[in-house]
Amino acid sequence: MLPGSSIGQHLVLTSFGESHGKSIGAVLDGCPAGLEIDEKEIQTMLDFRKPGQNLISTQRKEGDVVEIISGVFRGYTTGSPITMVIWNSDQKSKDYENLRTKLRPGHSDYPAMIKYNQYNDYRGGGRFSGRLTATHVMGGAIARKLLKVTLGIETNSYTTQIGKTKFEKKINKKMIENIYKNEVRCPDTNTAEKMRADIMNAKKKGDSLGGIIESVTTNVPVGLGEPIFDSLESNLSKAIFSIPSVKGIEFGSGFAGSELTGSQNNDLYSIKNGKIITTTNNSGGILGGISNGMPITMRIAFKPASSIAQKQITVDIKSKKKATLQVKGRHDPCVVPRAPPVVDSLVALTIADHALIAGKIKPVL
Amino acid sequence: MLPGSSIGQHLVLTSFGESHGKSIGAVLDGCPAGLEIDEKEIQTMLDFRKPGQNLISTQRKEGDVVEIISGVFRGYTTGSPITMVIWNSDQKSKDYENLRTKLRPGHSDYPAMIKYNQYNDYRGGGRFSGRLTATHVMGGAIARKLLKVTLGIETNSYTTQIGKTKFEKKINKKMIENIYKNEVRCPDTNTAEKMRADIMNAKKKGDSLGGIIESVTTNVPVGLGEPIFDSLESNLSKAIFSIPSVKGIEFGSGFAGSELTGSQNNDLYSIKNGKIITTTNNSGGILGGISNGMPITMRIAFKPASSIAQKQITVDIKSKKKATLQVKGRHDPCVVPRAPPVVDSLVALTIADHALIAGKIKPVL
Amino acid sequence: MLPGSSIGQHLVLTSFGESHGKSIGAVLDGCPAGLEIDEKEIQTMLDFRKPGQNLISTQRKEGDVVEIISGVFRGYTTGSPITMVIWNSDQKSKDYENLRTKLRPGHSDYPAMIKYNQYNDYRGGGRFSGRLTATHVMGGAIARKLLKVTLGIETNSYTTQIGKTKFEKKINKKMIENIYKNEVRCPDTNTAEKMRADIMNAKKKGDSLGGIIESVTTNVPVGLGEPIFDSLESNLSKAIFSIPSVKGIEFGSGFAGSELTGSQNNDLYSIKNGKIITTTNNSGGILGGISNGMPITMRIAFKPASSIAQKQITVDIKSKKKATLQVKGRHDPCVVPRAPPVVDSLVALTIADHALIAGKIKPVL
Amino acid sequence: MLPGSSIGQHLVLTSFGESHGKSIGAVLDGCPAGLEIDEKEIQTMLDFRKPGQNLISTQRKEGDVVEIISGVFRGYTTGSPITMVIWNSDQKSKDYENLRTKLRPGHSDYPAMIKYNQYNDYRGGGRFSGRLTATHVMGGAIARKLLKVTLGIETNSYTTQIGKTKFEKKINKKMIENIYKNEVRCPDTNTAEKMRADIMNAKKKGDSLGGIIESVTTNVPVGLGEPIFDSLESNLSKAIFSIPSVKGIEFGSGFAGSELTGSQNNDLYSIKNGKIITTTNNSGGILGGISNGMPITMRIAFKPASSIAQKQITVDIKSKKKATLQVKGRHDPCVVPRAPPVVDSLVALTIADHALIAGKIKPVL
Repeated sequence: MLPGSSIGQHLVLTSFGESHGKSIGAVLDGCPAGLEIDEKEIQTMLDFRKPGQNLISTQRKEGDVVEIISGVFRGYTTGSPITMVIWNSDQKSKDYENLRTKLRPGHSDYPAMIKYNQYNDYRGGGRFSGRLTATHVMGGAIARKLLKVTLGIETNSYTTQIGKTKFEKKINKKMIENIYKNEVRCPDTNTAEKMRADIMNAKKKGDSLGGIIESVTTNVPVGLGEPIFDSLESNLSKAIFSIPSVKGIEFGSGFAGSELTGSQNNDLYSIKNGKIITTTNNSGGILGGISNGMPITMRIAFKPASSIAQKQITVDIKSKKKATLQVKGRHDPCVVPRAPPVVDSLVALTIADHALIAGKIKPVL
Repeated sequence: MLPGSSIGQHLVLTSFGESHGKSIGAVLDGCPAGLEIDEKEIQTMLDFRKPGQNLISTQRKEGDVVEIISGVFRGYTTGSPITMVIWNSDQKSKDYENLRTKLRPGHSDYPAMIKYNQYNDYRGGGRFSGRLTATHVMGGAIARKLLKVTLGIETNSYTTQIGKTKFEKKINKKMIENIYKNEVRCPDTNTAEKMRADIMNAKKKGDSLGGIIESVTTNVPVGLGEPIFDSLESNLSKAIFSIPSVKGIEFGSGFAGSELTGSQNNDLYSIKNGKIITTTNNSGGILGGISNGMPITMRIAFKPASSIAQKQITVDIKSKKKATLQVKGRHDPCVVPRAPPVVDSLVALTIADHALIAGKIKPVL
Repeated sequence: MLPGSSIGQHLVLTSFGESHGKSIGAVLDGCPAGLEIDEKEIQTMLDFRKPGQNLISTQRKEGDVVEIISGVFRGYTTGSPITMVIWNSDQKSKDYENLRTKLRPGHSDYPAMIKYNQYNDYRGGGRFSGRLTATHVMGGAIARKLLKVTLGIETNSYTTQIGKTKFEKKINKKMIENIYKNEVRCPDTNTAEKMRADIMNAKKKGDSLGGIIESVTTNVPVGLGEPIFDSLESNLSKAIFSIPSVKGIEFGSGFAGSELTGSQNNDLYSIKNGKIITTTNNSGGILGGISNGMPITMRIAFKPASSIAQKQITVDIKSKKKATLQVKGRHDPCVVPRAPPVVDSLVALTIADHALIAGKIKPVL
Repeated sequence: MLPGSSIGQHLVLTSFGESHGKSIGAVLDGCPAGLEIDEKEIQTMLDFRKPGQNLISTQRKEGDVVEIISGVFRGYTTGSPITMVIWNSDQKSKDYENLRTKLRPGHSDYPAMIKYNQYNDYRGGGRFSGRLTATHVMGGAIARKLLKVTLGIETNSYTTQIGKTKFEKKINKKMIENIYKNEVRCPDTNTAEKMRADIMNAKKKGDSLGGIIESVTTNVPVGLGEPIFDSLESNLSKAIFSIPSVKGIEFGSGFAGSELTGSQNNDLYSIKNGKIITTTNNSGGILGGISNGMPITMRIAFKPASSIAQKQITVDIKSKKKATLQVKGRHDPCVVPRAPPVVDSLVALTIADHALIAGKIKPVL
């Protein structure tokens, strides 16, 4: 399927809407009948993504209240497409008006204008706004629940780097419980405090920061992934790159693994409680594109937010002349802290899709 | 489409075959009618991928002579699917027999056995063998020519790191001409020599090395990529992760960009010869998932080859007991030098697919 | 893509909603940017499909007011997905309550209950209701306009048979203007009157009638259709069979053509105003699965409506015993007169999809 | 997936090759691992389709010996794509040379020339030749076996009409055994004899005949089909229209059912041996697009073969002038007798695809 607003093969998410249009929303098709759905559970995950939660994120209040308008009957999925909508309010489109011809560095303005011949909805980034990741979360919250209920799969992600401040310890269960206890979503309180300070500092300077999110998924059954071209890595990376600002992804030992030797990087097999495991997990739980039963681990690089308050040199596309631009509006000095629910959503959607393809989740629960 | 042997939406590559079966091959569907095809051009690109070219790669002689069996008539594509086959010979399946129950660390053996309930063709890695990347090259050679002829697009990749030895200069045209002048495919002769020595050294120790490939594609028109879910980054990464051993990918400033501030990482717009360009290219030529006309750049992390001559501790899946394994057969101490034609192929296939989707290449030439 | 709520490859319609749920709606993705959209035009086509227009259709008042909630900006399509919703009202679910365990003959009740393990929304037919064809019309109205504006293609359909009453003249332009001038949508006033009487008669008896719709599409460029498996006939029939009650389709001379000889059925070529035409059109405008420039003609068989007021013998699925059933509620004694806008929609969607695939409509208008 | 050479979603058939090229072949992807495969079984079904079997079909000897070149290991499917090839021989391309510019009535010549700008392989119909249906049979033979072995599903088709001679009895098991006992594949010996005489008579006159094939599939489980757009009828009709010469399809009571009333056409439910059945089968085993457990029945209209020996008036596309054409070469006076294996193949592929989608066949056997 071409147009680009849908992802998945058995469990398909279609995203619609624009940042400053009437609505944003999602249609999730292919979810098995019989899954209990609670709007509040979806809302909780949306709230963790929502801007305006605290000082380090944009002060726009988006509300982001989800409404299910199809596919759920008496509290359970019916097997037909689940449609969810957020009605937009609090749109200050005027803030963006002066940007129309001055190309914002780092944004999609220029290629989008050319691609859609200026018919695209430019207000607030339109279809390219990070706000659209809320549509991923709507579907992702359901996929995540489906995985938990049917296979016991848990997926979590957290901030492991903001700018140059890094959290480098190995994650454990305890730490996962701490993720949402601080504003930056770092499992370690001290590092979180340092990251928060860095963001506030960048904000003060009218600048922005990037960072890295780490994702861990446990209890994945052996055998998910459809080589050659629908490997788990292929489809996870495809999904993750739909998040604006993502510029890199690595699984297991990733780029660092390229510096190791085979004898260092190979994960040796062992038996634990009668189950085959590997004693290390440099593969990130994926071998030959297929899950091997170990935790699926990945690291995702986010560039620093493109909207900064500082003056920037650019081009006015109308006059085709040099111009100076100062982006107004309310923007995140760092989007990374709002990203974990989005990453969890895309990971859950992808793994649920593969579990359905591989027949590990029955069509009717 | 589910099963995993096809990639692309308008230009679709279907890969078939097993390492030690009768044949490996590819069907390329959706290539416009009227493209001149020369088997020799495909062969040249296959030869650069072929093992046994020199001491640093496996000494298997695969021959790898491509035969076109459909879709070309009087030297031109007809618009119907192009099928290409390589007939396998020189298979020493016995080398692999003793591996059947002892799981090879780093290989797909374990998840594949579970997934296919031991019906999979395990000989020489079967469907999971790096040998299958020759099927990517068959289709990729045609896609690359299609891009060159219709849009002047050029895609090249080269080795930028082997183990800990790095080539860190910025690439230029001159260097691109040097890529295939040394065995490791590094644009710099001195670095190439060091890399070669490192590989020979690892080989001597019965060990293996990984590395990094960089890819640069120029002359891409503005506007390719179908956001949200079929962004260029999404589909390029999906394609690239179909290469065995790839564990990471980054575009533009990638992971390093996560440490920069927005004011450092944003690429400022400028006018050059009446054309809008950016003065830096931290975006890697992609903004909002769409090409912006700058070179598309990516870096790809390869893990060290899993097949090593050293003894490794593993599990025998039959007895479910600890076992010692020594992988015999002829293997690459480092697959990276053979990867550039494969990377070029998948990049070309993906960009050609997007150019067709966006109507930049006419259905009939 | 698996789940079944989407159709199309370049222009994709996703249908959502249930007959008695909150809403029914459609997402149309892949429509080029720059098409002028007027909600009233979509509404007009929906109104022709709407029940309660006159005595021969069900007396339910569905309202069916369409609301566009994404994808249109300042009156033009933006290139992003267009979402349209109809909010349900006037649902008398209680009418259907007693049907829950008694299987309604001719309806999807039984296979749907088994397939979705009783989680499906059974109210008013739920997802299987003819009401869902309104979602086809939402997308179809846009596709039909796109074809008209860009290629001058016109698609029309009309009633050619109700029960045993047939309209057998050849259609002409004048007749097409008459289609919506009578309640049964037959181009001939006298036949229309007879058909109307037949329907009223069946209604009086608590029975129902079926019929045949003919569809004609003119100005289709030569070359649409992607053989072997995406021929125009393949994709038109696939689309048309998504209409409940359709049980047959034929192109050109169809079933009657099977009784002719080759010399009778072959359409001979000729030149008219410098253009190649055929002197007859037994092919229905499609040869080898590809449009040949002649009008695309098809005939579609609708079974008599399954909901009838007469008592019927059936099975109670709960008790697994014989039962007697009398379907209450307000139902159409014949759905055929409401079908032409639905047929036009699916034909337009399919042909627009193929025109986009074949590069006959530019991605940006 | 766009280009048109593939069909299916979970079980995908890709057809390649041209009538007079090096080869024709098929890749079947998505077949579960562990199915026993015997080349002879595929060959048997191909032989029933093969031309030159007797006087009523073309005297070309195509050989049509299938060779499996991937996906089968030690006699069992491996879960990777199964590639099958027939190497072409006995090509008399010269017979067709004079047709190149004179458009053959009823053939794809004209739209194909326009679509592919004369780059298409026109020899012997190239990609549009009925010969390509052998590629459907290669995949279909495997799908048919998969259904038989895993679910006990049987699919059979037979000739029910040639020209004006009809076989109108209800089919039974005994008759199905007789299908291949006569040359026209009609279950009734007397009717078969009459049909054969009609064909020989048409042949003598340099003319051709069409006809109707009926298909019956038994033991289909309740619940196959994915409404709204992937109903069984949608996907069966899509598949069937990939057969050249097919111009119509109907399920159950089909076009004749349009003349019945609801009380006549509704199939009443009953209990038989504890199982819910319908006492008639006007639905053709499909309600709401989903199988209801009754036999799936359809009737398929074939036009008379377009290649006839009589002189025909046409246009020379080069001179754009009127021309007279006499098609030489060896052609079938009626293709219908060779169609049953092709129909069975496409029915089996479609139902197997849906059985896999619905989780009724496990990914590994």
